Amino acid sequence: MRILGLDPSLSSTGWGIIEVESNKMKYVADGFIKTDPKMPIADRLAIIHRTLNEVIETYHPDEAAIEQVFLNDNPTSTIKLGMARGVVILAPALYAIPVTEYEPNKIKKAVVGVGKAAKEQVETMVKILLPGCKPKNNDSSDALAMAIAHFNYRGARNLKM
Amino acid sequence: MRILGLDPSLSSTGWGIIEVESNKMKYVADGFIKTDPKMPIADRLAIIHRTLNEVIETYHPDEAAIEQVFLNDNPTSTIKLGMARGVVILAPALYAIPVTEYEPNKIKKAVVGVGKAAKEQVETMVKILLPGCKPKNNDSSDALAMAIAHFNYRGARNLKM
Repeated sequence: MRILGLDPSLSSTGWGIIEVESNKMKYVADGFIKTDPKMPIADRLAIIHRTLNEVIETYHPDEAAIEQVFLNDNPTSTIKLGMARGVVILAPALYAIPVTEYEPNKIKKAVVGVGKAAKEQVETMVKILLPGCKPKNNDSSDALAMAIAHFNYRGARNLKM
Repeated sequence: MRILGLDPSLSSTGWGIIEVESNKMKYVADGFIKTDPKMPIADRLAIIHRTLNEVIETYHPDEAAIEQVFLNDNPTSTIKLGMARGVVILAPALYAIPVTEYEPNKIKKAVVGVGKAAKEQVETMVKILLPGCKPKNNDSSDALAMAIAHFNYRGARNLKM
């Protein structure tokens, strides 16, 4: 079973894939999709869409996880983040891959053990939990953290059933 | 030359197509994409994406026009609108159809003659400017208004060049 973690943003969307085998996690791949702020937004969205389709066709994830949105005070930033988020969530949906949303502090709690953790702590724990993994940047590290959180909560949910 | 007007929203995205021949406008088609609020957002976005792809493959528009976003005071509404908007703008981008954004009052000015016009006035003028057209609902009427506005400003822009 493979999990795709996604960290959407118009300028740099992070993605990360982990594999789960007999309740153990293994690093598969990670990356980020940078788009040029000078390009029309429509073209930037098309780049995000096409790259995520490639990631899905290459690694065949079964489930996807995404952070619940960070609501910005600036409505223009919020709408831009919304646009990227819509296109990012669309990719797994088109492949019938279920997407689960998690609150940011739930993701940190799952990865670091506490809800309020610095970015660096998250990255350190991602490296410890996924031996051999050197996240490409902060965005892909966050995306891997989402995949790890999904693995944890998914297990908890399964236990409850 | 065909113009696609788009009025994005997660619950009901309007679309409308007009044809331009020797500087005259003709109605081609219009419609709206309703999605069930009880469905996961990812699936609603996939419906919008697939339907717009079908519209583009059926009517082969050359250019697209969209309203500049209405910024809501409610960040949750803004992010939802942003998600729909991202997926709506993506569709023409994937077919290399250029998308132009217009401010709401510019669209009203182009269609009704004044920047502050009621929805009903817009619909009445859409019917007058596109003889034989009976817009399916308010959303598709707004989308047709965007296509009309694009026709007008496009002409003005061309004259300036």
